[in-house]
Amino acid sequence: MDEFDLVITNGVCVTATDVAPLDVAVKDEKIVRLAPSGSLKASRTKRLIDAEGGFVTPGGVDCHVHLQEPSMFGKGSSADTYETGTRSAIAGGTTTVVAFAPQQKSLDSVLTALANTHELARDNSYCDYGFHLLVANPCARALSEFQQLASTEGVTSLKIYMTYEALQLRDNEILSVLLEARRNSILTMIHAENGDVLAWLTEQLEAAKLFAPKYHGHSHAPILESEATNRAIALSSLVADTPILLVHVSEPAAALRIRAAQTAGQPIFAETCPQYLFLTRDDLDQPGFEGAKCVCAPPPRDAEDQKAIWRGLRNGTFALLSSDHCPFRFDDAETGKKTCLSEEYPVGRFRHIPNGIPGIETRLPLAFSARKMEMTKFVEVTSTNAAKLYGLYPRKGSLIPGVSDADLVVWYPDGALGDITLTNDILHHDVDYTPYEGRKLQNWPRFTILRGRVMWDRDGGGVVGDKSYGEFLKRQKSTLNAIWDTVQEEGPFDLEKL
Amino acid sequence: MDEFDLVITNGVCVTATDVAPLDVAVKDEKIVRLAPSGSLKASRTKRLIDAEGGFVTPGGVDCHVHLQEPSMFGKGSSADTYETGTRSAIAGGTTTVVAFAPQQKSLDSVLTALANTHELARDNSYCDYGFHLLVANPCARALSEFQQLASTEGVTSLKIYMTYEALQLRDNEILSVLLEARRNSILTMIHAENGDVLAWLTEQLEAAKLFAPKYHGHSHAPILESEATNRAIALSSLVADTPILLVHVSEPAAALRIRAAQTAGQPIFAETCPQYLFLTRDDLDQPGFEGAKCVCAPPPRDAEDQKAIWRGLRNGTFALLSSDHCPFRFDDAETGKKTCLSEEYPVGRFRHIPNGIPGIETRLPLAFSARKMEMTKFVEVTSTNAAKLYGLYPRKGSLIPGVSDADLVVWYPDGALGDITLTNDILHHDVDYTPYEGRKLQNWPRFTILRGRVMWDRDGGGVVGDKSYGEFLKRQKSTLNAIWDTVQEEGPFDLEKL
Amino acid sequence: MDEFDLVITNGVCVTATDVAPLDVAVKDEKIVRLAPSGSLKASRTKRLIDAEGGFVTPGGVDCHVHLQEPSMFGKGSSADTYETGTRSAIAGGTTTVVAFAPQQKSLDSVLTALANTHELARDNSYCDYGFHLLVANPCARALSEFQQLASTEGVTSLKIYMTYEALQLRDNEILSVLLEARRNSILTMIHAENGDVLAWLTEQLEAAKLFAPKYHGHSHAPILESEATNRAIALSSLVADTPILLVHVSEPAAALRIRAAQTAGQPIFAETCPQYLFLTRDDLDQPGFEGAKCVCAPPPRDAEDQKAIWRGLRNGTFALLSSDHCPFRFDDAETGKKTCLSEEYPVGRFRHIPNGIPGIETRLPLAFSARKMEMTKFVEVTSTNAAKLYGLYPRKGSLIPGVSDADLVVWYPDGALGDITLTNDILHHDVDYTPYEGRKLQNWPRFTILRGRVMWDRDGGGVVGDKSYGEFLKRQKSTLNAIWDTVQEEGPFDLEKL
Amino acid sequence: MDEFDLVITNGVCVTATDVAPLDVAVKDEKIVRLAPSGSLKASRTKRLIDAEGGFVTPGGVDCHVHLQEPSMFGKGSSADTYETGTRSAIAGGTTTVVAFAPQQKSLDSVLTALANTHELARDNSYCDYGFHLLVANPCARALSEFQQLASTEGVTSLKIYMTYEALQLRDNEILSVLLEARRNSILTMIHAENGDVLAWLTEQLEAAKLFAPKYHGHSHAPILESEATNRAIALSSLVADTPILLVHVSEPAAALRIRAAQTAGQPIFAETCPQYLFLTRDDLDQPGFEGAKCVCAPPPRDAEDQKAIWRGLRNGTFALLSSDHCPFRFDDAETGKKTCLSEEYPVGRFRHIPNGIPGIETRLPLAFSARKMEMTKFVEVTSTNAAKLYGLYPRKGSLIPGVSDADLVVWYPDGALGDITLTNDILHHDVDYTPYEGRKLQNWPRFTILRGRVMWDRDGGGVVGDKSYGEFLKRQKSTLNAIWDTVQEEGPFDLEKL
Repeated sequence: MDEFDLVITNGVCVTATDVAPLDVAVKDEKIVRLAPSGSLKASRTKRLIDAEGGFVTPGGVDCHVHLQEPSMFGKGSSADTYETGTRSAIAGGTTTVVAFAPQQKSLDSVLTALANTHELARDNSYCDYGFHLLVANPCARALSEFQQLASTEGVTSLKIYMTYEALQLRDNEILSVLLEARRNSILTMIHAENGDVLAWLTEQLEAAKLFAPKYHGHSHAPILESEATNRAIALSSLVADTPILLVHVSEPAAALRIRAAQTAGQPIFAETCPQYLFLTRDDLDQPGFEGAKCVCAPPPRDAEDQKAIWRGLRNGTFALLSSDHCPFRFDDAETGKKTCLSEEYPVGRFRHIPNGIPGIETRLPLAFSARKMEMTKFVEVTSTNAAKLYGLYPRKGSLIPGVSDADLVVWYPDGALGDITLTNDILHHDVDYTPYEGRKLQNWPRFTILRGRVMWDRDGGGVVGDKSYGEFLKRQKSTLNAIWDTVQEEGPFDLEKL
Repeated sequence: MDEFDLVITNGVCVTATDVAPLDVAVKDEKIVRLAPSGSLKASRTKRLIDAEGGFVTPGGVDCHVHLQEPSMFGKGSSADTYETGTRSAIAGGTTTVVAFAPQQKSLDSVLTALANTHELARDNSYCDYGFHLLVANPCARALSEFQQLASTEGVTSLKIYMTYEALQLRDNEILSVLLEARRNSILTMIHAENGDVLAWLTEQLEAAKLFAPKYHGHSHAPILESEATNRAIALSSLVADTPILLVHVSEPAAALRIRAAQTAGQPIFAETCPQYLFLTRDDLDQPGFEGAKCVCAPPPRDAEDQKAIWRGLRNGTFALLSSDHCPFRFDDAETGKKTCLSEEYPVGRFRHIPNGIPGIETRLPLAFSARKMEMTKFVEVTSTNAAKLYGLYPRKGSLIPGVSDADLVVWYPDGALGDITLTNDILHHDVDYTPYEGRKLQNWPRFTILRGRVMWDRDGGGVVGDKSYGEFLKRQKSTLNAIWDTVQEEGPFDLEKL
Repeated sequence: MDEFDLVITNGVCVTATDVAPLDVAVKDEKIVRLAPSGSLKASRTKRLIDAEGGFVTPGGVDCHVHLQEPSMFGKGSSADTYETGTRSAIAGGTTTVVAFAPQQKSLDSVLTALANTHELARDNSYCDYGFHLLVANPCARALSEFQQLASTEGVTSLKIYMTYEALQLRDNEILSVLLEARRNSILTMIHAENGDVLAWLTEQLEAAKLFAPKYHGHSHAPILESEATNRAIALSSLVADTPILLVHVSEPAAALRIRAAQTAGQPIFAETCPQYLFLTRDDLDQPGFEGAKCVCAPPPRDAEDQKAIWRGLRNGTFALLSSDHCPFRFDDAETGKKTCLSEEYPVGRFRHIPNGIPGIETRLPLAFSARKMEMTKFVEVTSTNAAKLYGLYPRKGSLIPGVSDADLVVWYPDGALGDITLTNDILHHDVDYTPYEGRKLQNWPRFTILRGRVMWDRDGGGVVGDKSYGEFLKRQKSTLNAIWDTVQEEGPFDLEKL
Repeated sequence: MDEFDLVITNGVCVTATDVAPLDVAVKDEKIVRLAPSGSLKASRTKRLIDAEGGFVTPGGVDCHVHLQEPSMFGKGSSADTYETGTRSAIAGGTTTVVAFAPQQKSLDSVLTALANTHELARDNSYCDYGFHLLVANPCARALSEFQQLASTEGVTSLKIYMTYEALQLRDNEILSVLLEARRNSILTMIHAENGDVLAWLTEQLEAAKLFAPKYHGHSHAPILESEATNRAIALSSLVADTPILLVHVSEPAAALRIRAAQTAGQPIFAETCPQYLFLTRDDLDQPGFEGAKCVCAPPPRDAEDQKAIWRGLRNGTFALLSSDHCPFRFDDAETGKKTCLSEEYPVGRFRHIPNGIPGIETRLPLAFSARKMEMTKFVEVTSTNAAKLYGLYPRKGSLIPGVSDADLVVWYPDGALGDITLTNDILHHDVDYTPYEGRKLQNWPRFTILRGRVMWDRDGGGVVGDKSYGEFLKRQKSTLNAIWDTVQEEGPFDLEKL
């Protein structure tokens, strides 16, 4: 009988702390052994992958993914289904996604929202998956369901918005959410942009007949984000330092505000995304149709801001690099026309361009190729920290024998591929563009392995796995920085201490 | 014929920059001469005041005064009428007030609100007076009236609230106000506390049955103020650095945020009030009825915070020390009972205690007696800066021959009075308490002179002036720090620059 | 008999707080009356100046002036004698200078240094003058003389250097100076640049054969200044917050450090100079000989830094705008050759170019013409604050009848002169260049009046006063911000509190 | 034949990123396998350790250790020899030390200093060891030897002092060291306290007859450290951001200054020590002889400061927790008397108490027992980061099969020991006290294993290894944060860019 199901030999393994030549052995979906390079080459194994000179990393964990959500910008929903979105994920080295279960404002139950989303994902995912609740209506019933969410349903995080009419919570609602989240050790993700200011700027821009895609950037001026970030931190602080995560941080003032809170010991986490590392305002300002491809919120910023975001990744301000995959198709499926253009608005009307871009597949290749951070840092922010922050560790995000799932990415040796040109053709999402069209990359996942099974074999068939192999993940509470232990020590929110 | 109407001899004059022994001569309501001490003693004058050893300052200018405004806390209005409020002002050395013309949310015109307030004040004021518009409904009509307000009506400032359901503006509304204010060189005063958070905390406290007056302080936790202050500064910044004044700043984090903006060259002004220099949270926490006497918003803070506010006065963070006189009677006029107590809430219910305390008469004596700032600074923050900021300078706020109104306060020589005990008995407002009951003071205005006429003669009849002598002041745009010149240079708000 | 010696009518008087049309009357060297504009026109007066449309300001007070000091850069001394320096001062509107009495390191007495300097100045000054002690050797004897300096000699300020081998004090020596200065209420001025770093950079630059004048700027990299500024503030703080003045601040990081100390309530004062408002690093980098004309220390900085210094003036970081007049002639008096050039170093060798530029005469015209600050602020930083900080107020720096000396500058009406071109020809110093050659100015002092006597009459003879008219000024301790009162309250430096 | 030399089974392994139940197998001094818990129990192995319920961590790496150095405080040297110091290390779980090779100011060669130190250590160490050069005389010859140090001798770090007459470098000397260190990828450790200020304060305290040990704390006032820290960072910045490490940081202002530099992306590293986490100023102020036991530099600070240092550990300001082991015996070996006491100074004279305390053995037990940081963070700051920063990784500081030395600490299961009382009796240094006498601890290393060999067996003989087993470690350049790669990209120090 074979000792192992799979052995990867001769590769250089990278974790959040180590880079070393190691062989990895897999059995029954788990990593079962790490051993000196080459030492397992001759093992009895069902499959042997020779990763000579290449890198082996834990599978990517992408916890900011929108799949099949209703659009706030009119009919339809975001472009990717669970099937197409996770297909794209796996082809880009991501083995776990946590997507959103959206509660509409008209719905008073979050459990119902969760059940609906389970329907969409079941037997329909190439990778393992979990859910965050997207809370748009924090009514009494919804709040009362938080306990079941965390304790029974395995949903230990939720997301709220400070913007978008359909989703925006007022500060008092945010406090109610934070307080209940605190009681149930649920992490609260916050989209921090000032919705009232966005609405006002949009009106001003429209009144001035400034409709082009680039004015999307103007309508989301950086101060919307830094203001809301400061406010979110203040609200967390008010509720006895309840942990929050600022998602998709794009600009330096917000990053510095977060850093100051971290310096002071507050449990403030932050995430950034590839669009703030690889796109700038200039991309929004491209001629004709191209600008619209880069419309996301917050928008890409200036080149100097981009440098600051890189700095924030390196100095630890950002725990996570997620995709915020949230694409919409530009060509209408029925009419075949560009949905964001019209006779009245031949260059588009920014307020009607859905906010969001695809990125689930390009996240890891872009970041890995850029070579602007240490490889351990790359693993930390794209996999390990996500697993820890979202209660998936140590099953996900690491390479621990007997403990971690055998979720692995085998990369090519450095330089083996030459430059790859990134085009939408080579991607596996159900979207008709990528904002990174034409970029040169140095590397790409050669194999993506989920629980011991090869799902992606770039040189041998592409997506070779099965869309029913992905499993739903019940998540534990966050363990990053032992945040809930600290909350525990501090005791419950106490009005007398205000 | 007499050369002068009035000569004050032998006193020590203090302006915002100078302290010196000078005689002052008055003619036709104006100061007409400053001359070496004693040199005008023998002039032909209708009246000679010998101020030997005493101080002579410009009349106080108090630009944060609520008179006869409808209460947001139920029936009735704030306690003082224009008559009783200005009587109290004059007895405390204040010769000019700028009070509020309140627009209700149900009213779409600010000009109507202004006209209504004129009715209340006309022939009913012991001191000169002007109005700020209190804008609660910045609808299109109201905004369109700003031009007339500033250019015709002499109203060059307005106030808005970030809290209180009846008054609170959302951030988009604030931006509309700022933009229109900027176009008309109107200064915007902002009450910066987060109303949504206040509402939430109040609910939480009530749910926990924490009703005592001291919980008013808890409901207005410091972070409400520093958060809103940061947001107000962000909004000003967004509209191309439109000048704003943060009123009644009470806590260090807000003061530091303001200071940072000033350091960066932004046109952010700030005011504090005696309650943040002379009261603390402990005063709110007095047994029985006493705590309720100190309920104002923001509330008095901790002793360390108080020190920080003093520091802010001395280092220039605060341009103004105003009273925020906004009293409510505690004994109901009809029933004779304590209005804020009931059988159900024997110690009071903080959410029903009107926010606001009397202070128009005690502002100058408290500050002058404290001797914690230079005398020139005292004049600067209680008179000169107010006159400059609100477009009354050089007519008010200084001692310029031929130019300044003869608005003067003659103080006693230092130490001449011994300790005065401040009790509500000696005050002239129509309020049944002072939060400073029992305080010891070192000085008090001996004479208050308005446009050459003695209105207050402490040793000779008290209030001796006439309630119809006060005049309405049409105000010019602010000249402090040449702010509107700077705005002019920067040009109009430009969406392209966002 | 004439009532007045001099009346200035129809002008607009400006003080540190007021701008107003006022007539000024002078008698027996003092201002004796301020009266409404035009009201003194018909007075009996020895002399009447009609200043119709022009401005009248207090005489300039320039407390950073080097006259006839031994050069640290070889033979000779700084270019101007008391005669030529004060002649230049008066022609530029400055009526009071405080110059340095330099103690050499080889001298153990500061009183001797003072006596020597008195010799140079006596009967040799066109304007009133005082001295700061420049302390290079803070030995026990020198320290023991501080009491006499302040109490008897009228010298209430001293200056020390953190750079230049001939003058540099080590931190322990600085502490000894501060402690003794504190005991005697003497203000300590500090030249804050890191001398050890300067020496190292100079060596590195020379080793790399980078000799041109512009490398003077490199040798004085901004961080030398901000580091030393931080250190000086730390030392002041250690000695129980002993007041210090950072002189000639040139760069933003230093200014922000100072501002932070002021925000925290520390008694840290700062001065800047015209060279940091009107010159930049580009001026140092001019071709041929021109760059050398702008060599001063600290050197002019970048255009962005210049903006920050203007901002610091406006926001109050800088109490003073002084000249730091410290010129050296470029043409050798004996040989007629350029002293800073040689065959070996045809473009000059920066380390041998004496540090310092002339500026005593151009300070006020440059600042007044720039119109980048309010006129009251102009008077405050060029006259009033200097008088207060250096114990000359209220005799100097203001316009107080019966109290202030009749030191006045009468300026032309705005626009009356058209553009004046500034050239060295029109200046009155004994220096062969001005770094501002060719600048356009909008105004210039028309009359400079010292204690009632016209010393400068631009349209009627130029310097018309007498070089023996200037008097030595015994100075009181500083009164700016009541700093010594605060020190008094805090009590003596206490080792137990460290 | 045995497959393994040693297997540790049933333990919970902890690395800088992972905590997991894992068996560890050792062969030929290396870790060769990590496998699921229990899976190696039945292996053929020379020795099996059952760590059931206990923790297994990489051996401690302590890179701030003074052994057998000449005292600056008179005769003799620091108390521990290489033998006794490393014996103590091994008994406390530390398997690698990097100690100092001290260059005296009188010596112009660092290579000679290195050779001398090799003599002391050779065949005399229980643990592996390396050296930092302690540079006291950065003359041309010494600087010229840096290249050989780094490239041949395996010494890739050095230390300099900003204080202590015998060692203090002036800022220009520091710059020379930094520049040469930069050229050779040598990390510069800096003892940042202002020596001139220390000397001055010491004199002042002695003059005031304040001799007691607690005044050592006064003489090292916090501002000495924050000032010098700021200066060190400025100097690093001047030399094109040359990496430095601030050692033994003790107070919040210094920590915040470091954090600000890290936020800005500068290569500034910091270390703290147990004395700043477990001692306070009160310990210095103990009656009689006890205070002297806590004299180190910087001294222990206030309780609030201690909290800030813990915060700095958790938020990443400090990369390292080292011991700064630098003990001196209190009882004179010859006379048997207390060396720091005398008839003249019966409570001691703080300036004569040698600065330094023992801590090499207690570092890990104290930190592990405190349970105030995550276990991964404990490993990171006590082992992994030290290995990376000092060029010992991946051989030291991790658990990588085939790569890492089998340096391991096996801890007891949590709670297994009850409270251990720490007394000097149980320690293995050659010092007559511990400042932590009487502390309660929750854990202690049960086994310490160096390259596969058990050196310390707490329940089976104590120190069981051999003092000649420790090897000298030639170190590579630092890899932490890829700092030298960044330096490489920036290119050489460029005078033109100043």
